[in-house]
Amino acid sequence: MKVIRSINSIQKQMTDLIKQGKQIGFVPTMGFFHEGHISLMRQARNDNDIVITSIFVNPLQFGPSEDFEQYPRNEEKDAKIAEEIDVDYLFMPDVSEMYPEKMSIDISINNRVNVLCGRSRPGHFDGVITVLTKLFNIVRPDKVYFGMKDAQQVAVVDALITNLNFPIELIGLPTVREGDGLAKSSRNVYLKDGERSEAIWLSKALIKGQELVVDGEKNPDIIVKEVINTLKQQTNSKLDYVELLSYPELQPVSVINEQVILAAAVYFERARLIDNLIFDSEGRLNK
Amino acid sequence: MKVIRSINSIQKQMTDLIKQGKQIGFVPTMGFFHEGHISLMRQARNDNDIVITSIFVNPLQFGPSEDFEQYPRNEEKDAKIAEEIDVDYLFMPDVSEMYPEKMSIDISINNRVNVLCGRSRPGHFDGVITVLTKLFNIVRPDKVYFGMKDAQQVAVVDALITNLNFPIELIGLPTVREGDGLAKSSRNVYLKDGERSEAIWLSKALIKGQELVVDGEKNPDIIVKEVINTLKQQTNSKLDYVELLSYPELQPVSVINEQVILAAAVYFERARLIDNLIFDSEGRLNK
Repeated sequence: MKVIRSINSIQKQMTDLIKQGKQIGFVPTMGFFHEGHISLMRQARNDNDIVITSIFVNPLQFGPSEDFEQYPRNEEKDAKIAEEIDVDYLFMPDVSEMYPEKMSIDISINNRVNVLCGRSRPGHFDGVITVLTKLFNIVRPDKVYFGMKDAQQVAVVDALITNLNFPIELIGLPTVREGDGLAKSSRNVYLKDGERSEAIWLSKALIKGQELVVDGEKNPDIIVKEVINTLKQQTNSKLDYVELLSYPELQPVSVINEQVILAAAVYFERARLIDNLIFDSEGRLNK
Repeated sequence: MKVIRSINSIQKQMTDLIKQGKQIGFVPTMGFFHEGHISLMRQARNDNDIVITSIFVNPLQFGPSEDFEQYPRNEEKDAKIAEEIDVDYLFMPDVSEMYPEKMSIDISINNRVNVLCGRSRPGHFDGVITVLTKLFNIVRPDKVYFGMKDAQQVAVVDALITNLNFPIELIGLPTVREGDGLAKSSRNVYLKDGERSEAIWLSKALIKGQELVVDGEKNPDIIVKEVINTLKQQTNSKLDYVELLSYPELQPVSVINEQVILAAAVYFERARLIDNLIFDSEGRLNK
């Protein structure tokens, strides 16, 4: 595995590989790998001639009061994991390499973002699509892999790729969970002991909502109320949002008669956790 | 020469060519070819394995009171010209092909645009970089060709390519002129007979300014005043701007001691014409 920090160097090597007809799979990450990242890299390894993973904690997607400085990092361990999965290239640029000066070009998204994490993290997805546009141009992959835990991110990247005609296939892979259902997340390390046992209620509450749909409930308000009440009863976390929306359009629905996302975000003392389920009008889970 | 109107079709063919290791030169245009466009296509033919020209009158870069509907078009003649230059692909998408729905992604530029044409055409360069981002992703060229008559456009595309890491070499080619010095432009067809003879003073006035620099003048205000006075004395056109700025940064200068652009835009009854000269602190013209 080659570890590369220079844009010029990785871009040249990728160009050479493309001109040789190689198919390239790309897993963009912020590092601190868990089984979620590993599942993305494994799938990319399975699908492509060349696998490239990037690790870049992108300051543009963190708000001024968010955890950019504190975001967990462990380059050495990450590199070992990527090597074990037989990743070919690990691209780890510095902030000054990606943003040598203030950007003259601004990229923003005006759809699919005034809901869920977009509402509580203004500018977050503008930062995400800006760095992805740069990374897509640097790597020029055939396929790109994201985890469905960040379902809104997948919807936003879908809009980015479609609107700007990137010749890239977007692949969203199922959320990887702990044995007790907690979605794997780099931010789980921030959870205190008591919080860790409460955190399992994030997925449990969403499942309670989805089960109501399986039982025939079509009213999104009732589903959302069920999730909120469960979270309030079972945890001391502070609620950010619980929402039920069409997916991937992320529009409000008055009746559940299409594919929807039921998503929640809660704050524990040092960790903001998110989770979601995507299911059809009968409550059948996606994948 | 293949004439293609579908994004999917051209994108697939370009991908095939890239994977065969072909070098691709791209000439994005709005059509109604004149010798300026021809010089770009000839240079692209000379430099690359494959030459692709696009013709797309991009509604996003026209203001509501501008000439989108009236912009001159002649697909048949353009296709004949491109064929004669041995262009390989002519890409001519419809507006509905390029913008099937309202864009969810907005791209804008916050630098190099509050001067020259950017000031009198708000949003123009945002439209230019949006369509170019799409076209770059559709075509994926190695080199892209623009005329220096649109020097601000070249400066803006330079920022686009650099900021977003497009692996594309930007080539700006000299303005092609009529025998009497008038810069070739698709909009010259709008000039009435009396206006056509006045229009030569656009380039003549700029040359008078540049000659002052050759003679040792370093004060931009004096140069600009000379150009304005000449245009007022010799034409009945309405002045849009005359400016002298650093190039390609497009920043104001108080003394001419670096490469600068001296640029002017004037309105005739039905045509807005632009022209510019780029020269160093001694007045030596670029190229």
